[in-house]
Amino acid sequence: MSVRPFYWKRRDLLILDQRQLPDKIKYLRSESPTDVATLIRAMAVRGAPAIGCCAAYGMVLSVQLGPSHPSFSRLVESAKILKEARPTAVNLAWALDRMILMAKSHEGVSRSRLTEILLKEAKKIEAEDFENNKAMGRAGAALFGKEAVILTHCNTGALATAGHGTALGIIRELHLQKKLKKVIVDETRPYLQGARLTAWELDQEHIPHELITDNMAAHLMKTERVSAVIVGCDRVVANGDTANKIGTYSLAILAQYHEIPFYVAMPLSTLDLSKKTGMEIVIEERPSEEVVTFAGKRIAPKKTRARHPAFDVTPGILITALITEKGVVKPPFGENLRSLRGRQRRPEQSYEIASSLCSSQ
Amino acid sequence: MSVRPFYWKRRDLLILDQRQLPDKIKYLRSESPTDVATLIRAMAVRGAPAIGCCAAYGMVLSVQLGPSHPSFSRLVESAKILKEARPTAVNLAWALDRMILMAKSHEGVSRSRLTEILLKEAKKIEAEDFENNKAMGRAGAALFGKEAVILTHCNTGALATAGHGTALGIIRELHLQKKLKKVIVDETRPYLQGARLTAWELDQEHIPHELITDNMAAHLMKTERVSAVIVGCDRVVANGDTANKIGTYSLAILAQYHEIPFYVAMPLSTLDLSKKTGMEIVIEERPSEEVVTFAGKRIAPKKTRARHPAFDVTPGILITALITEKGVVKPPFGENLRSLRGRQRRPEQSYEIASSLCSSQ
Repeated sequence: MSVRPFYWKRRDLLILDQRQLPDKIKYLRSESPTDVATLIRAMAVRGAPAIGCCAAYGMVLSVQLGPSHPSFSRLVESAKILKEARPTAVNLAWALDRMILMAKSHEGVSRSRLTEILLKEAKKIEAEDFENNKAMGRAGAALFGKEAVILTHCNTGALATAGHGTALGIIRELHLQKKLKKVIVDETRPYLQGARLTAWELDQEHIPHELITDNMAAHLMKTERVSAVIVGCDRVVANGDTANKIGTYSLAILAQYHEIPFYVAMPLSTLDLSKKTGMEIVIEERPSEEVVTFAGKRIAPKKTRARHPAFDVTPGILITALITEKGVVKPPFGENLRSLRGRQRRPEQSYEIASSLCSSQ
Repeated sequence: MSVRPFYWKRRDLLILDQRQLPDKIKYLRSESPTDVATLIRAMAVRGAPAIGCCAAYGMVLSVQLGPSHPSFSRLVESAKILKEARPTAVNLAWALDRMILMAKSHEGVSRSRLTEILLKEAKKIEAEDFENNKAMGRAGAALFGKEAVILTHCNTGALATAGHGTALGIIRELHLQKKLKKVIVDETRPYLQGARLTAWELDQEHIPHELITDNMAAHLMKTERVSAVIVGCDRVVANGDTANKIGTYSLAILAQYHEIPFYVAMPLSTLDLSKKTGMEIVIEERPSEEVVTFAGKRIAPKKTRARHPAFDVTPGILITALITEKGVVKPPFGENLRSLRGRQRRPEQSYEIASSLCSSQ
C-alpha cells in the first residue's frame, strides 16, 4: 500500500505534512475543524480528493467538540470554515455537502450517535475515493499500448487522494500492466509538488521517471516520443473546462501543438455541473512570498513582487478525454457529462440543496 | 550606467559572479583562458554576448601568459578551450574567430605588441556590443505604442551583454520613452536568471515588473493584456530558427495560440548563416544536479534523475520578427537575413576561414 496522506486515529485526524516531503515524514494532529482548515490552507495536505476527505473528518471533529445535543447551525458554520480554506477545488464543497446532508437526515440524535454516523460517512467517502481511483486507473490504462511515455504535472498520487491517485493512479496501473516506459514529471513550481511528491511516490515504487523543469515540456514533446499528457483536476464544469494546478493550461496548448493526447483524470466528485463554463470558476491567488522564496531561500530582490495564481483553467476544447471511475468521457463534453451525471447514484438535486444550505449561512 | 558583468583591469579580466546575485556582488579574477573557460562553463558569467566578450579577453590572457614570440597554434588551442566551454551560443565562436583573424594578420609581432593589438580588439568587440544594444533598443521600442506590457524570459540585460542588454535593452528603451506599463518576468528555471538577475536589474532602475513562475505565462496571456513576448537568443540560423534558453520554444507556441507577437532581440553577432535549420544546432545538456538541487538543498528524492537541456530551438515560423542593431527583420527570414548579412562590413568568408582554422585544431 502506498503512503497515507491522512488517517483517523481514535478521536483525531492525523495529517501528513507534505510541505516537509521528501525530507521528513511527519503527521500533524487535528482536533478541530479549524485545525483541519488551517492545514488545508497552509498546504500541509493538498490535492482535491485528499482535502475533500480531510474536510469530511473535520466535520466529525466539529460534532465531537460540540454540545451533547448537536446543533445543526454549528455544523454548517464548521463546513463554511472548511470550505473557505481553498476555493478552487470542488471536492471540498462536495464532501462537506455530503456530510451536511447526512447530519440533516439525523437531526435530533445525540452527540455520540451523530459522531458515529458522520465518522462512518467520512470513512465511506475515503473508501469510495480509493476504489474510484482504482477504477479510473483501469479505465485510463486501457487507452494505451506498450512502452507508454506519460508526461504529468503536480501531484495526483496517493498523497493527493485517499491513496492510489487519479492521474498517477493511471500511471501506477500502466506500470502494473507493464505498459509504462517512463514518466516525465514536471517539477511544478512554485510548490514543487512534482519534484517533492510525485518523484518521491514514483521512487518509492521503483517506477521509472525523469524530472523536468516546467519550461522543458515543449522541448521534450518536440524531441522525444511522448504518448500523452495526463493531469488531475480541481474542478470540471459542464462544458469540460477544467481548473487544475497552474501550468496545466500551458501543457494543454503545447500538447495540442505537438498533436499529443491530453487527458484529465476526473473523479466524478470533481464534476461541477452547476457552472456552465470555466469563466465562472474562482481562481485562488496565493501570497507572492510563496513564489519569491525557493526551498526557504529568497530568490528575487526584496522589493520584487510575484504573481501567484494557484490554478488555471484549461478549456474543454483542448482536452482529448476525461477519464473517470465510470469510464472515459469523450467530447462533446456538455452532452456526455450530463448523461454521465444522470447515471450516478447521488442525485444532482441533493448536491444543490446542500450547497444552498451551506451558502445561506 | 548599469552594472558591469566583467571588466579588464591592468593585466586581468574581472568577472562578476552572477551565481551569487542578488545576494552578493563579487568579481572573480581570471588570469588565463582556462580560468575564463571555467567561469563560463560554471555560469559565473552567462548570456551569449557577455561570454563572447569574456572569451575575447581570454585570448588576450593567452598571449600575455605565452612565450615572448607568440605561437599561433597556442592561440588556436586557447580558442578551442574557450569555444568548448558552452557549445550553443554562437557569439563565443564569433568573437574567438575575430580574435584569431586579428592575430593571424599580425603574425610575427612580439608578445607585448600582440597583447596590445588583441586587447584593443577585445575592447572594440565590447564597445560595439554596447552600441549595438542601444541601436537594437531603439529599433525594438519603435514597434510599440503606449502602455506596453512585455513578457520576457531569462536575463538579456546588462548582465548578459557588455551592458544595456538585448531584449532587456528594448525594455529599458521603452521605459525611457515612457511607453512601458510593466514587465512580466519569467523566473526561468533551473538557474532562475529571471528572478535573480532580470528582476534585480529592473529593481535597480525602478522599472515596474512582476515575477511569475514559468508555468504561469499562458494563464497571464489569457487573462491579461500582454503586448508582446521579447526574448534574446544564443544562435539564429539561416531560416530564422532560434536557439535560446530552455522555455523559449514553449513561450513562442503559447504566444502564437494567444495571437501575441513574439520578438527575438538578435545582435548580428548571433546570426549563424553556416547552418540552414535549427536541426543542426547542438543543444547543451547540463548536469541533472543543477535541476534537483537548489541553493544547496535537494528538492527531489536522491535517486531521481532530472533532464537538463539548457536551451531549446524555436522554429522561425513562430517568430513575428527579429530585432537587430540594423533594424527589424520580418519573415521570410531566409531571404531577409541573407540580404542583411550581405550589407554587413565583416565578410562572411573571413568567418568561415576562422571557423576552419579553429575546428582543424
